Amino acid sequence: MLPASASAPRIDLNSDLGEGFGRWELGDDDRMLDVVSSANVACGFHAGDPATMRRTVRGAARRGVAIGAHVSYRDLAGFGRRAMDVPSDDLRADVVYQLGALQAFATAEGARVRYVKPHGALYHAAATDERVARDVAVAVAGVDPTLVLLGLPGSVALSAAAEAGLATATEAFADRAYTPAGTLVPRGEPGSVLDDADAVAARVLRLVTTGTVTAVDGTEVRVPADSVCVHGDTPGAVAMAQRVREVLAAQGVELRPFVETA
Amino acid sequence: MLPASASAPRIDLNSDLGEGFGRWELGDDDRMLDVVSSANVACGFHAGDPATMRRTVRGAARRGVAIGAHVSYRDLAGFGRRAMDVPSDDLRADVVYQLGALQAFATAEGARVRYVKPHGALYHAAATDERVARDVAVAVAGVDPTLVLLGLPGSVALSAAAEAGLATATEAFADRAYTPAGTLVPRGEPGSVLDDADAVAARVLRLVTTGTVTAVDGTEVRVPADSVCVHGDTPGAVAMAQRVREVLAAQGVELRPFVETA
Amino acid sequence: MLPASASAPRIDLNSDLGEGFGRWELGDDDRMLDVVSSANVACGFHAGDPATMRRTVRGAARRGVAIGAHVSYRDLAGFGRRAMDVPSDDLRADVVYQLGALQAFATAEGARVRYVKPHGALYHAAATDERVARDVAVAVAGVDPTLVLLGLPGSVALSAAAEAGLATATEAFADRAYTPAGTLVPRGEPGSVLDDADAVAARVLRLVTTGTVTAVDGTEVRVPADSVCVHGDTPGAVAMAQRVREVLAAQGVELRPFVETA
Amino acid sequence: MLPASASAPRIDLNSDLGEGFGRWELGDDDRMLDVVSSANVACGFHAGDPATMRRTVRGAARRGVAIGAHVSYRDLAGFGRRAMDVPSDDLRADVVYQLGALQAFATAEGARVRYVKPHGALYHAAATDERVARDVAVAVAGVDPTLVLLGLPGSVALSAAAEAGLATATEAFADRAYTPAGTLVPRGEPGSVLDDADAVAARVLRLVTTGTVTAVDGTEVRVPADSVCVHGDTPGAVAMAQRVREVLAAQGVELRPFVETA
Repeated sequence: MLPASASAPRIDLNSDLGEGFGRWELGDDDRMLDVVSSANVACGFHAGDPATMRRTVRGAARRGVAIGAHVSYRDLAGFGRRAMDVPSDDLRADVVYQLGALQAFATAEGARVRYVKPHGALYHAAATDERVARDVAVAVAGVDPTLVLLGLPGSVALSAAAEAGLATATEAFADRAYTPAGTLVPRGEPGSVLDDADAVAARVLRLVTTGTVTAVDGTEVRVPADSVCVHGDTPGAVAMAQRVREVLAAQGVELRPFVETA
Repeated sequence: MLPASASAPRIDLNSDLGEGFGRWELGDDDRMLDVVSSANVACGFHAGDPATMRRTVRGAARRGVAIGAHVSYRDLAGFGRRAMDVPSDDLRADVVYQLGALQAFATAEGARVRYVKPHGALYHAAATDERVARDVAVAVAGVDPTLVLLGLPGSVALSAAAEAGLATATEAFADRAYTPAGTLVPRGEPGSVLDDADAVAARVLRLVTTGTVTAVDGTEVRVPADSVCVHGDTPGAVAMAQRVREVLAAQGVELRPFVETA
Repeated sequence: MLPASASAPRIDLNSDLGEGFGRWELGDDDRMLDVVSSANVACGFHAGDPATMRRTVRGAARRGVAIGAHVSYRDLAGFGRRAMDVPSDDLRADVVYQLGALQAFATAEGARVRYVKPHGALYHAAATDERVARDVAVAVAGVDPTLVLLGLPGSVALSAAAEAGLATATEAFADRAYTPAGTLVPRGEPGSVLDDADAVAARVLRLVTTGTVTAVDGTEVRVPADSVCVHGDTPGAVAMAQRVREVLAAQGVELRPFVETA
Repeated sequence: MLPASASAPRIDLNSDLGEGFGRWELGDDDRMLDVVSSANVACGFHAGDPATMRRTVRGAARRGVAIGAHVSYRDLAGFGRRAMDVPSDDLRADVVYQLGALQAFATAEGARVRYVKPHGALYHAAATDERVARDVAVAVAGVDPTLVLLGLPGSVALSAAAEAGLATATEAFADRAYTPAGTLVPRGEPGSVLDDADAVAARVLRLVTTGTVTAVDGTEVRVPADSVCVHGDTPGAVAMAQRVREVLAAQGVELRPFVETA
């Protein structure tokens, strides 16, 4: 979305944060907020009770980490990962509701919500189902047309967002294998998820500096990415994210939100 | 809150609206939106799924009815009527969450949330418990210090709001009996709730023009009221609210929100 | 399921009951319990808070109305009508949970749950999706293998139930049009839902006495039905259900649960 | 509740288990099920989605661990720890609902629910508020009068249970300090919670063999206990529980449920 600087490579790292609920915690948000430049904040429908939302927004705002609304289907028991056939009227209202709630926490911390990234099953549906993608985009644009929609390169989520007048940004996944076509190898297939921190960090560095990743068949494939998603919901995931950041920093890659935050 | 016009008496009528949830409806919002000048809109914690919120906000915005956030404890099964001991951290975040969600619907309709009125058990707690009152006030002020807090005259809800820098407004209840001290006769006591529409309308007219109501012992008691609350959750309640409006209009009383809406 | 009596025709009438939640009511359960012989009782996932469940079970038990568990996806906001892709582990546990909760209310009233009928989107999924049908059947059989599964004739819900060792019963819909193949005309198509109480009552009578209904093309089609579903969620629906009962009674048709209740 | 054996001391260890929800886990149930003889299983209102309930019940049943219903106020966001003023009609139905749901999982595993222990804020309310205690007791007795109510010695929870015809059992807390009057030192006061595993194990051993604990002022106080509650929601807590078990076993104390399980 932002023009690449001629002088120094740069990238954004985003992660799903604030995914506890009440008594339950998930991941180590404090440590992850020191790693990423953008925080996808759960908004209460798959995770993220209000007190957790405030804490996450506050931690992001203090560090200059960009705040994004990680909107979901209403499915606390399923963590938003179960496909649901939600009619447009409901889905659009659900998106507005979650986005508005997060905006209020941002406002209270002197910050702003800058982007929206659908979560879980809604992310997958918005990537391929035009009706769902349009519902998300129209809902977001109706609340704040300066918000950016973050999604998979080439997905209908992004084209629908553009049609609704929103700016868009693309993301790659640090720990996922890619097909020669530049799409993700589906979870569950052998080798779909990478677990070696050094290898993952090297891949991200290569992606940032050359715009390509090595696909599962060994070929190089171009993957446009304004941001790279890193996970933080397990101890190993946090360490991997930290390694990615270290390697990028050591090579002079600037970590910076894909949206303006000032 | 607003200076009374020298030339013509005026009053605001407020009602709890948008109190359905999903498949369930409560009251006749369309007809009530034609009666009132201010709408206390449920924000999802005691009632009001997102689609209902949007519909209610849209109906209010189109009619120039002022939009208020009817924030509640998180208690869908108890309709927010059950006292809960919610710690400050949670309660403040709950208020911010609900308020923000409603703001987004207002924004999407080109309107703004103008005031906050706690609902049910939270209304009662905020009226008498300083800690709760302060939590509500601080949460509201942190999101938008131009919001008005609507509550019982003399309640700690209003004094806490004033301390937090918020403007306040007082309300009377059209269908409730008053003690000689100017407080409500508790529900459940004989005669606490009035059900004759003409008598109620006459009381409201008297309140607006003289600032007083006739207490249960026959004495006249002063009741400061920027707004009068009318109910709409039964067919009889809607008819009563309509009667109040007609009588006020016939006597030249202007119906106008207690907050600026333009 | 039960052998037809040689001497007198008989039928069961079932209806979805207890579909309020907390402050919200839906339909007139008291009147419908005087009409039907079997009550599909909501178990809290699409409707039916615990106090409503107890009230509904008590009303059924006192009248000798058979009690069935109307189990649903966990979707209060969508009233269980939204298709969801719930993994088997969750779905089976969800069915056990709802069934067990209802059983406890029945036990407390000296009654027993006799059958299970999936609700809404789960009803539709179980009718056509073998995996879902098996999940429901296995969950039910694990709790009480004497329970009967009520469903559409010819549906996989019934074949999966039979495989799991459950008895099954079939239902027809009083107010729905049928295709020449004996399936329901999909909602939304013209003429799919009938609204004339006398015509509906006559159809049910014909179904009970001849085993056939007149399809939309005028042909007679055989519809096996141990029970006929009548609706009660609107005033007109209650009147229609009452009319069905009156016409059946006037013609000497015995109304009796399709399961043993004594 | 059970007569102490003349030959060998014995005790029950109970713990709160199954307190995850969906994606979220809490504690290490597998390891705790190897430590305790009774499992207080969350029933969905403060924690414990249905799949978690089944897993917990299955793990308990396979080990011969007694299964108890850990019933709570409906408060997922507050983990059932927030005091709520729930009317009797709702509270009784809430208890029946949760208890029945758990019974179904037990039935499916060939086991039975043997006792009920209220959770969190409901535990505290039932210990001191007669109305709440009676609501819990009456609800439990209505479902299964052979269930045992587990609570604080001398609490109204137990007297109300006895009045409702239920057997009762008393519990002590392994890691809590006691006053000279035999009551718990309130959480938050200095020294109220003990964290040295060896010291805690020694206290439990003393309690089992002599029936006394050393109070905060150094005096010995008699604490009647059919069961000792150990916690398992942190790594340190699991280790402490294991230490308690080891010390008891080394001294020949038999670990056995306070209720019959065969």
